[in-house]
Amino acid sequence: MNLEIIPVTEIGAVAPGDDLAALLAVALEPLSPSSGDVLVVTHKIVSKAEGAVVHIEGDEEGFRRRLIESEAISIVRRRGGLIIAETKHGFICANAGIDRSNTEPGTMVLLPEDPDRSAHRIRTRLEHHFSVDLAVIVSDTFGRPWRKGLTDVAIGLSGLEAILDLKGTTDWSGHELEVTEVAVADELAAAADLVMGKAAGIPAALIRGYAGPRGAGRGRDLVRPASEDLFR
Amino acid sequence: MNLEIIPVTEIGAVAPGDDLAALLAVALEPLSPSSGDVLVVTHKIVSKAEGAVVHIEGDEEGFRRRLIESEAISIVRRRGGLIIAETKHGFICANAGIDRSNTEPGTMVLLPEDPDRSAHRIRTRLEHHFSVDLAVIVSDTFGRPWRKGLTDVAIGLSGLEAILDLKGTTDWSGHELEVTEVAVADELAAAADLVMGKAAGIPAALIRGYAGPRGAGRGRDLVRPASEDLFR
Repeated sequence: MNLEIIPVTEIGAVAPGDDLAALLAVALEPLSPSSGDVLVVTHKIVSKAEGAVVHIEGDEEGFRRRLIESEAISIVRRRGGLIIAETKHGFICANAGIDRSNTEPGTMVLLPEDPDRSAHRIRTRLEHHFSVDLAVIVSDTFGRPWRKGLTDVAIGLSGLEAILDLKGTTDWSGHELEVTEVAVADELAAAADLVMGKAAGIPAALIRGYAGPRGAGRGRDLVRPASEDLFR
Repeated sequence: MNLEIIPVTEIGAVAPGDDLAALLAVALEPLSPSSGDVLVVTHKIVSKAEGAVVHIEGDEEGFRRRLIESEAISIVRRRGGLIIAETKHGFICANAGIDRSNTEPGTMVLLPEDPDRSAHRIRTRLEHHFSVDLAVIVSDTFGRPWRKGLTDVAIGLSGLEAILDLKGTTDWSGHELEVTEVAVADELAAAADLVMGKAAGIPAALIRGYAGPRGAGRGRDLVRPASEDLFR
């Protein structure tokens, strides 16, 4: 089945206290969401609506460093101004997810308190509004070791599995597959980023035709436990 | 603009010496490729057509370990049967890219000798056949530190940039973007994987509507130089 990825435009600027689900409902209206669609929303507008925004006080660079250290539960690596940190959610990313792009002047945006809960709230509101079954992913842009450039990943989700588990599945020649866990929620977030564009300021995309498993996946499912991780 | 991702079915099994571009041309015929389309092909059928296939001799596990060590230019980590290695292409991945899924019994498949050249050959043949301008990505499935599950990435490309460089671009509030390098070729490979499916044996997908920059990107552009990499 074909996959279609549709940018959700006309959301406009989002401010603390805004009803994001209501803004998304208006923006999605022309697309007539139908059951099975997956909505990907960049965390930035989620964080802003939820008030996960801080006002810079004093020296910006010093403020930023202290903020990263207070948001992080551990510092994984540090070089110059770049800090790779583990967040309380378990994500390992630059600057503990604190971001200064597409923010109001004098502010920085944090990660949502609980991105799965954020995704769930948006989903239930939109499902009620459109009377359809949806899935929602809250995404962020992460770097990765070894490979240049950044890609969007899923940090919160509702209504689908994060991982497609093929354990026990055989290939066409009857071998058990070696690759058994596909990070489908991250692949959906990456696909959505292709139509959003960081400079264009399109903060959401609707994905149609995704045939992967629905379920109760969580952002945490995409975090590799430290005990299984050869790189920390 | 909407993005459409279309599985390319009916390619069938590919054997050493097969003319892969000719097989792809037949399979793509019903889709009527048009200028700007991006074709993503999993490396496995590229490697098979190019004869990058080895026959297992003697004890399979020992053979596999020796093969990984001969394909690797360095071993990055090792735990039990899992070896994370750097390939001669510069990629850091499990088992130096050697794969036993969807292979003929008694064989293992290596990475293509030069995935960019493979992509370029497929592209020029298909561009000539269909009289359109295309881009081609050769993909593989890689794991990553910190995050569970695997995602597809680009290991070779032709006709597009691997990285979308937003340096100097400002956001809607006039700030320079913090995220300036987006690994668009990896995001395209990940998006394509969503319709391919490892168990379904669909080894290619056509992406329509991608508005990113065309150019002379290479798989190597996605390899973070060791000097800039905090994790090796």
